Amino acid sequence: MTTGVRRRMGVEERRRQLIGVALELFSQRSPDDVSIDEIASAAGISRPLVYHYFPGKLSLYEAALKRAADDLADRFSEPHEGPLGARLHKVMGRFFDFVDEHGPGFSALMRGGPAVPAGEASAVNTASTTTALIDSVRQAAYEQILEHLGISEPPARLELVVRSWISLAEATALIWLDGRRIPRPELEMQLVHDFAALTAVSAAYDAEMADVLRRLLADEPADGPFGDLIGRLTALAPQPS
Amino acid sequence: MTTGVRRRMGVEERRRQLIGVALELFSQRSPDDVSIDEIASAAGISRPLVYHYFPGKLSLYEAALKRAADDLADRFSEPHEGPLGARLHKVMGRFFDFVDEHGPGFSALMRGGPAVPAGEASAVNTASTTTALIDSVRQAAYEQILEHLGISEPPARLELVVRSWISLAEATALIWLDGRRIPRPELEMQLVHDFAALTAVSAAYDAEMADVLRRLLADEPADGPFGDLIGRLTALAPQPS
Repeated sequence: MTTGVRRRMGVEERRRQLIGVALELFSQRSPDDVSIDEIASAAGISRPLVYHYFPGKLSLYEAALKRAADDLADRFSEPHEGPLGARLHKVMGRFFDFVDEHGPGFSALMRGGPAVPAGEASAVNTASTTTALIDSVRQAAYEQILEHLGISEPPARLELVVRSWISLAEATALIWLDGRRIPRPELEMQLVHDFAALTAVSAAYDAEMADVLRRLLADEPADGPFGDLIGRLTALAPQPS
Repeated sequence: MTTGVRRRMGVEERRRQLIGVALELFSQRSPDDVSIDEIASAAGISRPLVYHYFPGKLSLYEAALKRAADDLADRFSEPHEGPLGARLHKVMGRFFDFVDEHGPGFSALMRGGPAVPAGEASAVNTASTTTALIDSVRQAAYEQILEHLGISEPPARLELVVRSWISLAEATALIWLDGRRIPRPELEMQLVHDFAALTAVSAAYDAEMADVLRRLLADEPADGPFGDLIGRLTALAPQPS
């Protein structure tokens, strides 16, 4: 059966298949622990044939990473309908789906990139390739959020809030992966609340940000993520003495 | 004069001097752009003599990084006196001092570590050394915060809030360095407020975290960082309709 499949595949199809197989393996274990032999075996082809399509593990890793980055960026897109809190909440669900599917690979990547076999000449290029890919996904997330807010030229404080919140979301996902000690749905909602809270902190000192906050809260139903949060926060705040 | 200094220095003293000179150069420009020749010249010694003390630029970079990490971790220590918000605010001032002093080097390091000359065999070890150093500083920050909160066995949600806030502080500093478009004092205060806000979000859904929040707010004067924030947030919250 393997031979049958092999005969039929063209170059691009075979490359796509290998990338898919590699991405699955790189997602499930730290990329350092995945060998070309394993990838060959999972793809049902010989080791030399893998090298025919990819010069080495690094180039296959980069291709797999590129596919994962495109996949993640795609998950950020969300129709511009309904309250902003609910939209962000849906995207958070898809973000955690991605993190869940690619857990060990995501951790290895975000905790400083894959260790590369000592002396491998392309180590540096890989480090800059992975950094560029991570940055492109962050940029996609940033632009999506601005589009949903309807803001094309963000003031510096808004850029700071959005970009630093993206870092917060990454950190939250990484910490969650390390033991999964907090239920995922709670964190998906918490990150939506965090976004509102960080915006509110910035808004407390800046008229432009207060405007962004009003826009964020404008269509919120009282029982939506933000309305809910404000009620709970108000209840927690100490009474003036 | 240089010769006079050179004659008097012992091995350890010379190493310390070279680390100091290198740290200053690595802080002011991306480490990739700093050459051993420059370090030698700034230290007033010959290039071969630098190699006598350090086998290469990487080992000197690692030593400089270690010194910077120790320096940063030292700045987290703050007497256990007075309201928590004011203590955190003082530490934020010292954190931004550090970021300010080491700007370009800090950016290069946090944005994926220094690029290493292609083919240099110790590239991998350096990547794991820098990751380990960064992690040790994050751990020091984490432990300091828990000590100030008086909590030795943090629940998972508190660990998440503290560690993800540390990531937020790093991201905020990096974004600030890129153009310095927001006044530093504002960000020092904003991060204190962010800490309270993230704790409050988590507290809204968890009794244990509500307890941490109460502890955080217990000794706060009404005009302290947290009291001030709560007042402003309450004013921003939309009135129930």
